[in-house]
Amino acid sequence: MNIANLSTTEIIEGIFSNNIAIVSKAITIIESTKPEHRSIANKIIEGCISKNHDTIRIGITGVPGAGKSTFIEQFGNLLTGLGKKVAVLTVDPSSSRTKGSILGDKTRMQELVKNPNAYIRPSASGSSLGGVTRKTRESIVILEAAGFDIILIETIGVGQSETAVHDMVDFFLLLKLAGAGDELQGIKRGIIEMADSIVINKSDGNNVQNAAQAKMEFARALHMFPPKENGWSPEVLTCSALENRGLEEIWKLIFNYCQTMKETGYFNKNRQQQNENWLIQYLEQELLSKFYQNPKTKKLLPLLKEEVINGNTSPFSAAEKLLNILSTN
Amino acid sequence: MNIANLSTTEIIEGIFSNNIAIVSKAITIIESTKPEHRSIANKIIEGCISKNHDTIRIGITGVPGAGKSTFIEQFGNLLTGLGKKVAVLTVDPSSSRTKGSILGDKTRMQELVKNPNAYIRPSASGSSLGGVTRKTRESIVILEAAGFDIILIETIGVGQSETAVHDMVDFFLLLKLAGAGDELQGIKRGIIEMADSIVINKSDGNNVQNAAQAKMEFARALHMFPPKENGWSPEVLTCSALENRGLEEIWKLIFNYCQTMKETGYFNKNRQQQNENWLIQYLEQELLSKFYQNPKTKKLLPLLKEEVINGNTSPFSAAEKLLNILSTN
Repeated sequence: MNIANLSTTEIIEGIFSNNIAIVSKAITIIESTKPEHRSIANKIIEGCISKNHDTIRIGITGVPGAGKSTFIEQFGNLLTGLGKKVAVLTVDPSSSRTKGSILGDKTRMQELVKNPNAYIRPSASGSSLGGVTRKTRESIVILEAAGFDIILIETIGVGQSETAVHDMVDFFLLLKLAGAGDELQGIKRGIIEMADSIVINKSDGNNVQNAAQAKMEFARALHMFPPKENGWSPEVLTCSALENRGLEEIWKLIFNYCQTMKETGYFNKNRQQQNENWLIQYLEQELLSKFYQNPKTKKLLPLLKEEVINGNTSPFSAAEKLLNILSTN
Repeated sequence: MNIANLSTTEIIEGIFSNNIAIVSKAITIIESTKPEHRSIANKIIEGCISKNHDTIRIGITGVPGAGKSTFIEQFGNLLTGLGKKVAVLTVDPSSSRTKGSILGDKTRMQELVKNPNAYIRPSASGSSLGGVTRKTRESIVILEAAGFDIILIETIGVGQSETAVHDMVDFFLLLKLAGAGDELQGIKRGIIEMADSIVINKSDGNNVQNAAQAKMEFARALHMFPPKENGWSPEVLTCSALENRGLEEIWKLIFNYCQTMKETGYFNKNRQQQNENWLIQYLEQELLSKFYQNPKTKKLLPLLKEEVINGNTSPFSAAEKLLNILSTN
């Protein structure tokens, strides 16, 4: 079969039968910026979107050095060992890393990449978070239609990428490294409140004591927040991805979380809410993008900003001036 | 002088000479929803906006029962005692309270309302946070042009009103009540990260011990966050507004904060950034509001939302359908 000449229907069928070459091709079409690919991509997504089964989407974030690659490698192998089909995606809007990430991601997870029940898709390229986010969300649709049971979505936390990933997953895991001193150093504001669990990685060798200490500090920090809307109290766990310890407990926690949330109806409600949010976000983003690309806006806005910053014009009058000029176009 | 027949120029002159009747009238014009008032309001704002002097804008939030009214009353009197002219505004987009707030606010602060160097302006009415926010921001412009040195902006924290107030002040103060048990109960997610200081009120009588304990717990909670962009480490203080103790320390803290931020240039940079944010926020809000009021949007969006929520259409395709229909209008 020549993949290059497949019809849209054949691509969709290939996805449904978990043909990895075709899955990869479909994601490549989704990631393409060419307009002719966009319309094919839309058809593929439409064909895949209602092909649902019981999946779990897990977001994993952590600063560089927290051991995300080793963690995902071991965690992925654990899950395939339990009979799950696992896909790994990365959200990384930083162009510098993206350029090298195709080789990078595969080198980072040498074991998982050889695992027949795992699929690792290197970062979507793209300079805007919005673009990368859309591609990732659409990739999830394809991967789930292809029969993957668990989607791991990794972010290194550039810009607002954690928030973007949080908004597309069922469970959000913050991976931390225990060290001496202030355990929360280097954590971005707001991220602790998003986590459904904090996992202290590298609890091995001389670091076991530090990890236990960090666990205590984080548990205290989490206790300071009010409970989440869904009633979940985030838990802190320790693990050693390197020595493959503690990972089963993490899976149990996630599995129990999903079971509980399915029983309360929150699991499904959350996904519906996420879908609705994607619609509204994308709509508004496109509308505003049109406005900012208007030549009149491009000319006037910098001048009005300057006046507003210097306190010569009220922000509201400035905005009204701009809107008036545009509407009397 | 008949206030009803003043010209815009006379109103602006009245504001500059701190004529309270005219200041009140100007704010009433700003708050009016009548289109003919809007154009006068814009002229007044334009006339006042560059009349700057050395002012401090302080946001004060706290749950009902934290003692905000008593605190503002005592704090306001302290400041006028130091020779400052003080204005008090309230941001409260909840319509139920707004209806009764004209009487309410004045009754709540019986001492301050009689103070010739203080001005209390009851809540702007309005059902949308955007509307109330705009009115409050414009009222600040007028009050500062009228010579008020310190603007206290109170919010009871409905919806996103804390964020709105945080975005219009130099210093953001969270007022807390010490009690038994979990001190952070009832605090909205994210608010601790916004606070420049947490003040435990009602540290009096049998409550002194509780307040000291709460102070310790909050200090520990604050320590768990990374430092703010401006280098400031938020402090926790205790006070008794009722017994008028601890308020001078709070004023010293705020004054020192402002001095430090002026030296680093952050104070001014923050205000410029806030101005720019207001411009962009207002622009985008108006643009989106036009879109949502379009009859075609009103007809199609609910149908598309339903399809997206049920998983029958991709959020992105749905958005594109809507945008296409609108652009081929």
